[in-house]
Amino acid sequence: MKLSEIAKVIGAEFHAEDRDISAINSITDAKEDEISFISDKHLLKDLETTHAAAIIIDKNISKNLKQNTDHIFLEVDNAYWSMAVLTKYFFKHPKEEIYEEKNGIRVAQNVTIGKNSVVMPGVVIGKNVTIGENCIIYPNVVIYRDCKVGNDCIIHANSVIGSDGFGYATNKEGVHKKVYQNGNVILEDDVEIGSNTSIDRAVFGSTIVESGSKIDNLVHIAHNCIIGKRSIIAGQTGLAGSSKLGQNTVLGSQSGVAGHLEIAPFNQFAARTGITKSVKESGKVFAGFPFMEHRKWLKIQAKIAQLIK
Amino acid sequence: MKLSEIAKVIGAEFHAEDRDISAINSITDAKEDEISFISDKHLLKDLETTHAAAIIIDKNISKNLKQNTDHIFLEVDNAYWSMAVLTKYFFKHPKEEIYEEKNGIRVAQNVTIGKNSVVMPGVVIGKNVTIGENCIIYPNVVIYRDCKVGNDCIIHANSVIGSDGFGYATNKEGVHKKVYQNGNVILEDDVEIGSNTSIDRAVFGSTIVESGSKIDNLVHIAHNCIIGKRSIIAGQTGLAGSSKLGQNTVLGSQSGVAGHLEIAPFNQFAARTGITKSVKESGKVFAGFPFMEHRKWLKIQAKIAQLIK
Amino acid sequence: MKLSEIAKVIGAEFHAEDRDISAINSITDAKEDEISFISDKHLLKDLETTHAAAIIIDKNISKNLKQNTDHIFLEVDNAYWSMAVLTKYFFKHPKEEIYEEKNGIRVAQNVTIGKNSVVMPGVVIGKNVTIGENCIIYPNVVIYRDCKVGNDCIIHANSVIGSDGFGYATNKEGVHKKVYQNGNVILEDDVEIGSNTSIDRAVFGSTIVESGSKIDNLVHIAHNCIIGKRSIIAGQTGLAGSSKLGQNTVLGSQSGVAGHLEIAPFNQFAARTGITKSVKESGKVFAGFPFMEHRKWLKIQAKIAQLIK
Repeated sequence: MKLSEIAKVIGAEFHAEDRDISAINSITDAKEDEISFISDKHLLKDLETTHAAAIIIDKNISKNLKQNTDHIFLEVDNAYWSMAVLTKYFFKHPKEEIYEEKNGIRVAQNVTIGKNSVVMPGVVIGKNVTIGENCIIYPNVVIYRDCKVGNDCIIHANSVIGSDGFGYATNKEGVHKKVYQNGNVILEDDVEIGSNTSIDRAVFGSTIVESGSKIDNLVHIAHNCIIGKRSIIAGQTGLAGSSKLGQNTVLGSQSGVAGHLEIAPFNQFAARTGITKSVKESGKVFAGFPFMEHRKWLKIQAKIAQLIK
Repeated sequence: MKLSEIAKVIGAEFHAEDRDISAINSITDAKEDEISFISDKHLLKDLETTHAAAIIIDKNISKNLKQNTDHIFLEVDNAYWSMAVLTKYFFKHPKEEIYEEKNGIRVAQNVTIGKNSVVMPGVVIGKNVTIGENCIIYPNVVIYRDCKVGNDCIIHANSVIGSDGFGYATNKEGVHKKVYQNGNVILEDDVEIGSNTSIDRAVFGSTIVESGSKIDNLVHIAHNCIIGKRSIIAGQTGLAGSSKLGQNTVLGSQSGVAGHLEIAPFNQFAARTGITKSVKESGKVFAGFPFMEHRKWLKIQAKIAQLIK
Repeated sequence: MKLSEIAKVIGAEFHAEDRDISAINSITDAKEDEISFISDKHLLKDLETTHAAAIIIDKNISKNLKQNTDHIFLEVDNAYWSMAVLTKYFFKHPKEEIYEEKNGIRVAQNVTIGKNSVVMPGVVIGKNVTIGENCIIYPNVVIYRDCKVGNDCIIHANSVIGSDGFGYATNKEGVHKKVYQNGNVILEDDVEIGSNTSIDRAVFGSTIVESGSKIDNLVHIAHNCIIGKRSIIAGQTGLAGSSKLGQNTVLGSQSGVAGHLEIAPFNQFAARTGITKSVKESGKVFAGFPFMEHRKWLKIQAKIAQLIK
């Protein structure tokens, strides 16, 4: 898509030299042919290092910028909303996918399945998906386009790899504009996913489950999360968007992780822990909501029990 | 079904003029050719305005009624149980549905799919379902019979629209008698549903997701809920039966809403809020379980943290 | 598999008479042609009564055993890890299953479906599964091999019966070795399962849902649980492994049950109860996390609310 067309779509003035834009990306990850956006002044610090070809920016933020920058800015009232509008233009609509059926398995174009991998009936595999060797994909699993599954992976029945992350821009009238999720999901090697689990594709880039991690049933992994290698995530746990678990994290059943957190490696979280802040130490056991060290949580529960006496 | 047959099925005496009954319905919503039931004396207040053709009623309740009513009563020991027994007679058994396959999509009789809508492989669409224009129905979604999907809707993989609400009558021996769920689900326009989400059909009438609402993965919406327009329901949240969310309600991840509540518009609930009462004010932020205003919850958590010092 | 081969696979010395081993099983349930394991000294008490043909045991535990036992021991550094290694040899790989399609239903070898049962399109039924009479299996349900469904059962769309329990042995490096789950799931008569629910197969033996029990949507039942007859499990509840619910247990929505618990019959647990200990009394109502009697929980909540005043 031409930069001039983008400017037209989002209603921004455009006077720079025109060029082709291949994708939208975050300010930190954008490549030289990608466009990014700044909807929060805290992102201004990334201007110096970004490779973005152009930047959609809130007028309220850009008006305070010095003029001596090399960046191309597209100034709009609401950069986040404009970005949402634009994602639709980069969305790869499923109508482009053509499925073929064999033994009850439906596979779109350009799919690779490694040797000794078993794909069972009812599985649907989107365009450009790669599946490694020695995998078992159980019935009725759905893998959306562009996702990657490593070697020695097991995905249990009715799980979904690559559904859209839950992202919307909301205007003053309370109308929600979908942010199309144009990234993917990568499952590295030796990953096991339980049944009825959902792992959402990234808005840009990848949601990643690193090698050797094991995820139970009915788990929700939101867009852009990174699950460190050899992590264990027990049943009905949920992670909000963009959180990163260090290696060998253990999340007990029905835990929850808020968005944009970073959890240091080798920590354990008891069942139902509600993780609301990043964790910098390693080797600890946490519990509770708000969460705290497990032994402290036990003490507080004892105190609360005394309350009633 | 004839009223006389109904009386026979539930073991009630019947001496009135016979007539055809088309459905069971609640006392407030029953139409003139429908039968209803009173299993709770609080429902007696609705007797004056109901249009029900006849009313199944507990003997314990009816014995206190004045005789000068025009209603036809079918008196039984346990009206709720009798109603449950009767629902089976109005159940439209799936054996009546005949599916045809095209491109891996299975569609029963009398289904309408609007123009530009894309239905992907593995989707199963029951009898009488209508789907609007410009929709995307991702693989392996199941839409049960009689449900309606509006225009511009997206339903992600492996979600279920219209499974039975969770309703049983239980007798003294602890045996559960299924209340067949003969209603449907209506998704209005511009609704998005995540993956592995379940929206149950109404016992009578409709479970409704109003226009512009967005629902994340692994969400449970029970029978007869109404989700107000432009609401946001984050991952792994659950709503019990018959609750109504006002427009632009925001439910954080892993929240829960008890049954039969009414939530005023424009409220936000933090992740994991347990909503146990109706909310009459608007524009507030709530948290906790039992839930309270978010700032109050923060104070209480601080107090609890002090307990241990 | 020959006992001598097993010894070789797990690197144990073997000097006894060789014989065929048909399966791995727990020390209490092992039959005379099955092998078991002791990875915890608390299991030593079961040595007297076990029928196991041989026992894999930690060297640290076996060194304290008296020599005058009749048992055949295979001594290893980490019996649990060795057992995990061995489960793969007894795993029945899905590549052995050959599916045939009829009306959109995929059925493997040796499946029995009783009269008047309706199986809907997209359902996948593994090898050796039996389904009783008068059942409804809604679209896209997956029933893994060897599972049994009784008479008069209903399973709603996209639920999974028999996915693998979540079990791994973990070594000092934090690598997780899969414990292949070679048991099954048994649903007795008159059981209803909601949509998007997962019931995991047992590691050995059976996960059982007894007759007349009703399970809602998005429920997670882990391996080796036993759900007592006529129990009610509401939406988004999860049970960890090997817990047993007595008959007529009621679990409110979003409840959780820790592993290896025993709950006496006829107890009710409010929504979101976190059940962390076995319950010996009957006829009570519990709530909270940590859980307590419901009336006590209400008092504590009132006290906590006073804290802030």
